[in-house]
Amino acid sequence: MTGKFIVIEGLEGAGKSTAIEQVIQVLAEQGIEDITSTREPGGTPLAEQMRALVKQGHPDEPLTDMAELLLLYAARSQLVENVIKPALSQGQWVVGDRHDMSSQAYQGGGRGFDRTVMERLRDTVLGDFRPDFTIYMDIDPVLGLERARGRGELDRIEKMNIDFFHRARARFLELSEADPSVVIIDASQTLEAVTADIRQAVKHWLERQ
Amino acid sequence: MTGKFIVIEGLEGAGKSTAIEQVIQVLAEQGIEDITSTREPGGTPLAEQMRALVKQGHPDEPLTDMAELLLLYAARSQLVENVIKPALSQGQWVVGDRHDMSSQAYQGGGRGFDRTVMERLRDTVLGDFRPDFTIYMDIDPVLGLERARGRGELDRIEKMNIDFFHRARARFLELSEADPSVVIIDASQTLEAVTADIRQAVKHWLERQ
Repeated sequence: MTGKFIVIEGLEGAGKSTAIEQVIQVLAEQGIEDITSTREPGGTPLAEQMRALVKQGHPDEPLTDMAELLLLYAARSQLVENVIKPALSQGQWVVGDRHDMSSQAYQGGGRGFDRTVMERLRDTVLGDFRPDFTIYMDIDPVLGLERARGRGELDRIEKMNIDFFHRARARFLELSEADPSVVIIDASQTLEAVTADIRQAVKHWLERQ
Repeated sequence: MTGKFIVIEGLEGAGKSTAIEQVIQVLAEQGIEDITSTREPGGTPLAEQMRALVKQGHPDEPLTDMAELLLLYAARSQLVENVIKPALSQGQWVVGDRHDMSSQAYQGGGRGFDRTVMERLRDTVLGDFRPDFTIYMDIDPVLGLERARGRGELDRIEKMNIDFFHRARARFLELSEADPSVVIIDASQTLEAVTADIRQAVKHWLERQ
């Protein structure tokens, strides 16, 4: 089997880190251990600098929604071309903490960028490059942000109004339901139940490869 | 008269700085002294950080052509929304060292990005915002780079192959010839002749406002 690109998506506090650990563990149990982990935005030296601009902004100047969107895609271009594609072409598996669906959800759904703008930008930057399998960790944003707050200070994005996250979640769900390569996990369950669902989803998907 | 946006465009070494001085001087002679000067990429705290990513890149990672393009437009969004539009709306004049035509020429002509991609990106980021008047300083890239080298070390862009600059110049010329709001100045002339041409072009344009 050649390398595949698996992505974990979801709102803040949905439990993406736990999901990533589970995915990597299930892969290891199947003998797949040559794995590259990525996170977006970021994951390369230049992409991390772009991430910092998005996350921190500047005390004296607002980051425009458009500049935020373009920075996220600039970072994605760096990560896909310099890390993900080279890894896949060498037969490695890649497990990603977020990818394009996050932009579609946060910038498309949350910020309200036009769908045509979002789809054109994705196609211009990524061509037909897509994840092989995506696990979307679905959670009510009120619960998710409560969990995220427990981890420490909130960043620029996480300080957005709750309505922003409700719009993002709606877009995540819509895109996930429309795409057969995406599995939706109910992340509001107990840790044990979420873990079991993730393990089962990954195993089931692996059997079909 | 309300504020106007005047842009100076041209290859490295074309004499843009001198042209900007002349434009500001002619405006002052007409009693227009409330002027904001900008440069691209850059011109705001965040846009300057994006400029640094484009100009310096990273020793361990190539900047993709796509990320470069998106960073340039992210910086442009910051400058237009946070500096240029607010200045114009307050009745100030804005004199810009480069604007969108540089992206069309360097990334479109030089790097070879598709014209549709370039036009869509411009329209997505800028809407119908355009300069009121543009002075394109035309010079053979061999002569221009010779002049630029005399100023010190060349940056990442200026180290490109000469063919890149020939393609950029061809696109600059094509766009300038097609746009009635652009005047082409022969920047290979003596400083005195170039200065006289710029002064005349600005005066002539001002008379028609």
